[in-house]
Amino acid sequence: MIKVGVLGAAGRVGSAVAAGVNKADDLELVAEVSAGDSLQVLLDKDVDVIVDFTTPAAVMGNLDFCINNGIHCVVGTTGFDDERYQQVRDWCAANEGVGVLVAPNFAISAVLTMAFARQAAPYFESAEVVEYHHPNKLDAPSGTAVKTAQGIADARREAGLGEMPDATEQALDGSRGANVDGVHVHAVRMQGMVAHEEIVFGTTEQSLTIRQDSYGRESFVPGVLTGVREVASHPGLTIGLDKYLGL
Amino acid sequence: MIKVGVLGAAGRVGSAVAAGVNKADDLELVAEVSAGDSLQVLLDKDVDVIVDFTTPAAVMGNLDFCINNGIHCVVGTTGFDDERYQQVRDWCAANEGVGVLVAPNFAISAVLTMAFARQAAPYFESAEVVEYHHPNKLDAPSGTAVKTAQGIADARREAGLGEMPDATEQALDGSRGANVDGVHVHAVRMQGMVAHEEIVFGTTEQSLTIRQDSYGRESFVPGVLTGVREVASHPGLTIGLDKYLGL
Amino acid sequence: MIKVGVLGAAGRVGSAVAAGVNKADDLELVAEVSAGDSLQVLLDKDVDVIVDFTTPAAVMGNLDFCINNGIHCVVGTTGFDDERYQQVRDWCAANEGVGVLVAPNFAISAVLTMAFARQAAPYFESAEVVEYHHPNKLDAPSGTAVKTAQGIADARREAGLGEMPDATEQALDGSRGANVDGVHVHAVRMQGMVAHEEIVFGTTEQSLTIRQDSYGRESFVPGVLTGVREVASHPGLTIGLDKYLGL
Amino acid sequence: MIKVGVLGAAGRVGSAVAAGVNKADDLELVAEVSAGDSLQVLLDKDVDVIVDFTTPAAVMGNLDFCINNGIHCVVGTTGFDDERYQQVRDWCAANEGVGVLVAPNFAISAVLTMAFARQAAPYFESAEVVEYHHPNKLDAPSGTAVKTAQGIADARREAGLGEMPDATEQALDGSRGANVDGVHVHAVRMQGMVAHEEIVFGTTEQSLTIRQDSYGRESFVPGVLTGVREVASHPGLTIGLDKYLGL
Repeated sequence: MIKVGVLGAAGRVGSAVAAGVNKADDLELVAEVSAGDSLQVLLDKDVDVIVDFTTPAAVMGNLDFCINNGIHCVVGTTGFDDERYQQVRDWCAANEGVGVLVAPNFAISAVLTMAFARQAAPYFESAEVVEYHHPNKLDAPSGTAVKTAQGIADARREAGLGEMPDATEQALDGSRGANVDGVHVHAVRMQGMVAHEEIVFGTTEQSLTIRQDSYGRESFVPGVLTGVREVASHPGLTIGLDKYLGL
Repeated sequence: MIKVGVLGAAGRVGSAVAAGVNKADDLELVAEVSAGDSLQVLLDKDVDVIVDFTTPAAVMGNLDFCINNGIHCVVGTTGFDDERYQQVRDWCAANEGVGVLVAPNFAISAVLTMAFARQAAPYFESAEVVEYHHPNKLDAPSGTAVKTAQGIADARREAGLGEMPDATEQALDGSRGANVDGVHVHAVRMQGMVAHEEIVFGTTEQSLTIRQDSYGRESFVPGVLTGVREVASHPGLTIGLDKYLGL
Repeated sequence: MIKVGVLGAAGRVGSAVAAGVNKADDLELVAEVSAGDSLQVLLDKDVDVIVDFTTPAAVMGNLDFCINNGIHCVVGTTGFDDERYQQVRDWCAANEGVGVLVAPNFAISAVLTMAFARQAAPYFESAEVVEYHHPNKLDAPSGTAVKTAQGIADARREAGLGEMPDATEQALDGSRGANVDGVHVHAVRMQGMVAHEEIVFGTTEQSLTIRQDSYGRESFVPGVLTGVREVASHPGLTIGLDKYLGL
Repeated sequence: MIKVGVLGAAGRVGSAVAAGVNKADDLELVAEVSAGDSLQVLLDKDVDVIVDFTTPAAVMGNLDFCINNGIHCVVGTTGFDDERYQQVRDWCAANEGVGVLVAPNFAISAVLTMAFARQAAPYFESAEVVEYHHPNKLDAPSGTAVKTAQGIADARREAGLGEMPDATEQALDGSRGANVDGVHVHAVRMQGMVAHEEIVFGTTEQSLTIRQDSYGRESFVPGVLTGVREVASHPGLTIGLDKYLGL
C-alpha cells in the first residue's frame, strides 16, 4: 500500500487526484495539503509519494521539503525551466533513491498517442494531424498537436525521409492546414466536443490512424496514479510520463 | 427486365457500367456503342434506357437521337450548361414520358452525404468538413467538399443561424482550414488513400459525423444502376441523383 | 418571444431544460413547476409552451390541464401507450390549434442518425450497427441501436432487398454480433465512454458511416428547444421529434 | 544500392514486390526467379537479399541454397513450424552474419497496430477489437484480430490487470462479440470494404483508438521493402517484422 499526500488538494485538479487515490485499492490517501498548511503532516503520516498540482510560486518549496525528507514526488504544476530542473536534479543527487516525475501532460491516451506517432512516422510517406476542440479554445492548433507534429518531423528526419508527396497546385487559402515543420496540422472547433486528436499515416494502399478522445476534465487522473505507482522505481528526475510507459 | 444500352462502352467508366449492368438480375445489356458507331442499334435492340459516359462533343447528339426516339437517358458526361439543359428540356417537352437524368456525381455514398449534411445543418451550432485524398490530386479542397460546405451554409442561412462559435485568437496560418461561405474545410493529402469526406456537426454535449469512403474507381456504378432503374418514373429533365433518392 | 413553463423543473432533466431556455434569445422562462405545485401559474404567466419531464403518474393530469387551456406541450416523460395517445388526441381534437409533441428521445444527433439510416438503407447491400457505451450499462445492445437496426430492416424490406452478403463459414461464437431482424448489431462496453452509435453501410468500392457521439448527460437540450420552437406549427399529437426535422 | 532477387516473381505477390523494388531508389532488382528456374542466377548477379513468396514445398530448398551462399532472406511464404525454424537457425549458425526474416504479415500498418495495442493495454481498464472485412471472407473474426486480442490479453496479465468492467445483465445473443481470452472481438462484414481493424481502449474520461485500413491487395509491399533494407543488420533468424521496427 503506497501512502499518498496530495498538495493543492483544494484545487479542481488536486481534488480529482485525491478522489482517484481514494478509489484505488493499492493506494492510501493519508494527507491533503492546501495553500498555507504546514508540510509537517507529510512526515507525521509517513507519506511515500506526494502529488503536486499547486502553483509555480509554491512548487519549489514543496519539492525542497519532500525530496530532502526522502519523499517521492509526482508533479503536474507548470512553470519549470532549465534552472528549476537543475535544482531538482541537485536535490535528488543529495538524496539517492528519491524519484521525481515532472510532466506537462498526464492524459495517458494523449501521451501514448504522441509516442506511437513518433514510432510510426518512419514507415509512412504521409502523415497529418487533425485536432478537434470546443470552440472556446483560444489557440489553434493545440499545443499537443504542434508537439505531435514536431515529433513526427523529428522521427522522419532521423529516418532520412524527405518531403511528403503533395501534388496540390490550386488550393483555397488554408485548406491544407498549418505547416508545422513539414507536417500539416488541421484544427477543428466544434460545439459539444472536448479535446480530441487524430493522426493519420499513409503508405501504399493502407493507412494507420491513432486517435485520442478526452471526454471530460478528469482524464489526467489515471496518468497521475501511474506516476504515483512507478515513481519509486525511477530515482532522480524524470521529465515526461512517457518515460514510465516502457515506450 | 430493363433493356440497357451503354454509350461510351469502350471507356473505363463505360465498361465498368456495362459490367455492372451484366451482373444485375433486373437489367439486360443489349447494346454497347463506342465513338463512331451508329445509334441505330439502340432501336434495333429495343433499348429502354441508355447510359451516356461519352464526351461533351458527343453527348448532345446522342440525347437528341435517344429522347426523340423515346429512349430514357442516364447521363454522367460533363460539360452541361444552362443552354444545354434548356435544349434537353425542349426535347423532353416534345416527347412526353421520356426521362433524362444528368448528374455530376453518381457515387451514391457521396450524394447521400451531401444531402444528409444539408438536412442536419440547421440543428447544430458548428459544422466543419474534412476531406482526405491521395496526394496526386491537384486541387484542395475537393469540388465535392466545397459543394458540401456551400450546401451547409445555405441550409444554415435558411434556418436563420448566424456565425459558428469560434474563440480562436492565436492561430498558425492555415490551421483553421479554408473558409467556404463561413464553413471551415480541411484537406488532407495521404499516400494510400483514395477519396474520403467527413462532415462533423456539433451542439450541446454531442456530435454527429457523416463520413463517406471511396475505396476504388468503380464507386459510381451502384448510383448509375439506381438511375437506370428509376429514370422511367421521372419524366422530363432531372439534374442530380439526389432527386431520385427520396431525400 | 415564446413564453415557456417547465414542469418537473426540480429534476435533473427539467433543470437542464430550464437552463437551456434561459440561455436562448428567443425563449423566455416564465414558470417552473415542481411536484405538488399548482398549475394555475401557467395561466397567470400566460405560458405558450410547457415542457414536461415529470412522471408517468403526473403527466396525463398535466396534459389535460394544458391542452384544455390552449397551451402547447413538449413531453419527454415516459409511460405512453396507445390508450394514452388516444386520450391526448381526443383532447387535441377538442382544442383546435394546440400542438403536442411526445418523444422518446430528444438527442437531436441520435434522432437524425436513426432517420438518415432509414433513408440510406435501400441503397447499400450491407449495413451493420456498432454501439459504444460506458460499462455500467445493463443491456446490450442499447435500445436505440435495436431501433436503428429495425428501421434499417424495414427500409430494406420496403425496397425489396434480400439478405446481406456474408460468406462466413467459421465463426467464433458471438463474433458476428446480434442478429436484429437480419441486421447485425455489435455492442462495445468501454470505460470512459458515454453513448455512441455508428452505422456503417457498404456497396461497390464505397462505404457510408453515420456516427453519433453523446459526451454528457445534457445532450437532449437542443432537441427539446427545437420542440418548443416548432410545436405551435404542428397542431394535434405528434410522436417523435423526427417529424419536426423535415426528414 | 542493395541488389535484390525475387523468388516467386511470377505470382501476384512476387510481381508486386518486384514492381516495388523497381520503384525504390536504394534497391536494384537484379533477378526474378520462377518455379523451375535455377537459383544459380542469384550468384551470377551477386544478389544481396532475396525475397521469397513461393510455396511451402519450395521455400526450404531456396533458403538452404541462399543462406549457405551468404545471401540474406526475407520470407513471406507460409507453412513454417518449429522444425523448419530450427533448420533455418542451424543454417544461419553455420553462416555467421547472414540474416533471415520470416514474417506472417508484412502490412506495416497492421504490424504496428498489433505492437501499439500491446504497449497500450496495461494502461486502460477496457479494450475491445472491431474488425471490418469484405463479405467474401470465410472466417470471423480475422486471424489478425484474434492475435491482436491475445496480445492485449497477455499484456494485461503481465501488468496484473483483472477482468474488464462490464455490468451487462440483459444481452441479445452475440451482441457483446466473441470472447478471446477475455477481450471482446467484433467482426463486421461489409460490401465494398477490404480489411480494416480498430482497437479501442478506455479509461477515466478518455479513449484511445488505433485503426488500420487496407485499401487494396498490395499493402504488404512497404513492409517487404523495410525487411529488405534491414535484414543485413539482423543476423540469424528473426520471426515477425515487428522486431525490425524498433518497437
